Amino acid sequence: MSRANVQLDAQGNLKHFLTIDGLSRELLTEILDQTEGFLGVAEQAVKKVPLCRGKIVANLFFETSTRTRTTFELAAKRLSADVLNLNIDTSATAKGETLLDTLRNLEAMHVDMFVVRHAASGAAHFIAEHANPHVSLINAGDGRHSHPTQGMLDMFTIRQHKGNFADLCVAVVGDILHSRVARSQLLALKTLGTGEIRIIAPRTLIPAQAQALGARVFYDLREGVRDADVIIMLRLQRERMQGGMLPSEHEYFQLFGLTEDRLSTAKPNAIVMHPGPINRGVEMDSQVADGPRSVILEQVSNGIAVRMAVMSMCIGTQNLQGQGETGV
Amino acid sequence: MSRANVQLDAQGNLKHFLTIDGLSRELLTEILDQTEGFLGVAEQAVKKVPLCRGKIVANLFFETSTRTRTTFELAAKRLSADVLNLNIDTSATAKGETLLDTLRNLEAMHVDMFVVRHAASGAAHFIAEHANPHVSLINAGDGRHSHPTQGMLDMFTIRQHKGNFADLCVAVVGDILHSRVARSQLLALKTLGTGEIRIIAPRTLIPAQAQALGARVFYDLREGVRDADVIIMLRLQRERMQGGMLPSEHEYFQLFGLTEDRLSTAKPNAIVMHPGPINRGVEMDSQVADGPRSVILEQVSNGIAVRMAVMSMCIGTQNLQGQGETGV
Amino acid sequence: MSRANVQLDAQGNLKHFLTIDGLSRELLTEILDQTEGFLGVAEQAVKKVPLCRGKIVANLFFETSTRTRTTFELAAKRLSADVLNLNIDTSATAKGETLLDTLRNLEAMHVDMFVVRHAASGAAHFIAEHANPHVSLINAGDGRHSHPTQGMLDMFTIRQHKGNFADLCVAVVGDILHSRVARSQLLALKTLGTGEIRIIAPRTLIPAQAQALGARVFYDLREGVRDADVIIMLRLQRERMQGGMLPSEHEYFQLFGLTEDRLSTAKPNAIVMHPGPINRGVEMDSQVADGPRSVILEQVSNGIAVRMAVMSMCIGTQNLQGQGETGV
Repeated sequence: MSRANVQLDAQGNLKHFLTIDGLSRELLTEILDQTEGFLGVAEQAVKKVPLCRGKIVANLFFETSTRTRTTFELAAKRLSADVLNLNIDTSATAKGETLLDTLRNLEAMHVDMFVVRHAASGAAHFIAEHANPHVSLINAGDGRHSHPTQGMLDMFTIRQHKGNFADLCVAVVGDILHSRVARSQLLALKTLGTGEIRIIAPRTLIPAQAQALGARVFYDLREGVRDADVIIMLRLQRERMQGGMLPSEHEYFQLFGLTEDRLSTAKPNAIVMHPGPINRGVEMDSQVADGPRSVILEQVSNGIAVRMAVMSMCIGTQNLQGQGETGV
Repeated sequence: MSRANVQLDAQGNLKHFLTIDGLSRELLTEILDQTEGFLGVAEQAVKKVPLCRGKIVANLFFETSTRTRTTFELAAKRLSADVLNLNIDTSATAKGETLLDTLRNLEAMHVDMFVVRHAASGAAHFIAEHANPHVSLINAGDGRHSHPTQGMLDMFTIRQHKGNFADLCVAVVGDILHSRVARSQLLALKTLGTGEIRIIAPRTLIPAQAQALGARVFYDLREGVRDADVIIMLRLQRERMQGGMLPSEHEYFQLFGLTEDRLSTAKPNAIVMHPGPINRGVEMDSQVADGPRSVILEQVSNGIAVRMAVMSMCIGTQNLQGQGETGV
Repeated sequence: MSRANVQLDAQGNLKHFLTIDGLSRELLTEILDQTEGFLGVAEQAVKKVPLCRGKIVANLFFETSTRTRTTFELAAKRLSADVLNLNIDTSATAKGETLLDTLRNLEAMHVDMFVVRHAASGAAHFIAEHANPHVSLINAGDGRHSHPTQGMLDMFTIRQHKGNFADLCVAVVGDILHSRVARSQLLALKTLGTGEIRIIAPRTLIPAQAQALGARVFYDLREGVRDADVIIMLRLQRERMQGGMLPSEHEYFQLFGLTEDRLSTAKPNAIVMHPGPINRGVEMDSQVADGPRSVILEQVSNGIAVRMAVMSMCIGTQNLQGQGETGV
């Protein structure tokens, strides 16, 4: 069974959200369309919709991330679900068998959805393949592999500002090689038919499959952002530098840090994105981060709405339309 | 005042649930009957009933146990209660006086129920004896003494599969001496009039009062499970082995580990139980744990329903019948 | 802009609650009046009012305090808000810039209120000054500076027992110099027009501005409590003793510990208060703490109601009157 199939039920509806890989443009577009509907919930006096009332969402975080966990917790609560936060000590689940026993136990408690964060690539797929049919899974980041809700919130932010992907030039800047965020972004950009996709990175950090992803590769930031509509900066994983694959933070900023000056070759109305949290003075300076082209905080807001959309597509009892309580 | 009386109010209704000791067969049967009604809640589209809406349940865990805490949190949320999770550093409450001050503070905040886990036997009783009349207590495990909701979920699982206790032969296998789970199971089995109760354990792990509990003692697993209807495996507390009371894990499995072969002397439709989490290859092998006689995951599901039953009997505003929202 | 103004919106309504400093007697009285209305909620069968339904309250605790966090969590849940508990590692936010990025992120997630606890004096003001207009802030204790909800729950408890502040003599006993609680109490007592305010402390622990606060200073406990209506004991911060500013605990109790004997010079119906948790045998003995004049546990109950009042004044969608669900 292909990975795409694992994510869909017999009717082709979203059951798990593990990776962008293998999902159709139609499905990605449906996620974006649903997200549109959920944006308004945050503007209501009562910021809740009852789409997942009585459902249990368990945040299974094998890797601590308060920030990511909070976005899923908020999305679940806005959908009126109950949330269990379980920080699982990886040492206690070193054996795959024990991980399955943990899973079976939570299934037996009639948990409806697992939001899984794990340091190992493929962990979310492993769980999804072994999960009971009544359970849904969202991958909240697995190793270097995938972080699909981050990818989709970026796509939503781009569509919000720029409309049609076919007309756009989008540049992704940074440590492409190790980034699950970049992988999800590039797959989504390709699936949505983005006109031109660029990768800008040091030679050591370009993945072998860059061309397979249909991306043009640049080693120079100023060249790479020329005439771009969208510039996505990746977060620098500082621990990578110890491996010698990256120069010092200072040197990195000299070569790949975004400044107003370097942005000057991009389209005048280009937007700048970053998944956060920003290392100011490393990936970009504060003038850019807080400047008029930055949509970084909109990405955060959109992140809640995208997660609500995906959660409700997987386990919602009905769709947003026709919910008296929502007021939409 | 006897311990049984502490648990009941003036009308004989359940006020605290601290131990099986001293509770009548009628009351245990009422808990099992109430549990039956709550099983269906997990099957509803909206898995909630409003029996404890507006009530505050505080999980007072002086001993960390994510697994047990989660079952009580889920049960409380399905009853629409609000939950406070308080992991209390035992060192900060070394003096009994300070524990009482903690208790008095939470009472003053109008908490309705405390779910207490503590390493000291008798801790839950101590708190119940000093608690204000408007507060209810559930013992979620105190030292070697008692774990009554575990005992009752086991009874419920047995009744579900086997019906009348009078006709049954039930064998409990493992470290009876140190197990609060075993103590609760044996008391409940006796109170419910179980036909034959057996204990199977190494000689060093048989408690002095085994015969007072009305149990037949076996030192050989194959002999002990012969013609049994129900086989309850206890979890091996690995830390006990350091005291020299237990052989190595490998030797333990050789003598008391359950295998399909050893199960062959039991009744053909015998069920196998375990409170979890299983040490696979120690208490039983995976063939048994995942085999057709294992009801281990049903125990987990039943555990939520039993805890809902006990919580609502103690602090519910009305009973399950007549709740429009439940659909039962 | 003065600090008082930061706390009020253009219509003079409470927007943030950071300090008593600069708030009018009218506003403090309104908080006390609102609190009166919320006291009854804890007596209802369903202890909830829907004033903050759909609102998100984030507990931003840069300094761990399970006790204080619990009171705000309970208050928010009784108002039907959703609560996020975020324990923020101070080391991760050593730079003010990063603290602002954390803030901006939570704002972008449409969090409605931050309850902030921080070891640095002024932290809550710093955040309030940089927060977006749609966000409200409550100071849950910042360094030595302020703990305004504690101050107001003390005022409420005094008014409940004694009525008019103008007729009262109130003595505050202990480490005034380092106490944010004392600072908030003294400002509130003065603003509410308390007849006579006294400070009783060792010479080393009297702040320079004692007279500016309008307080009479005493170095002898028995003298200081003579004819007092209200005696507020401060909690002894044990870590202060290492700096040599305080004698040993034993010596402190000999000089400033409250006993029934020392209380004999106070008014016969005087009340004794303490913010908790009590160091029994240090600030007072158990006879006083548990005696008929102690209102310490009432302070705890009132604390929930005061926090509900302040939260709903800042972010409630309507006021308590006219809420069908409340039954008031």
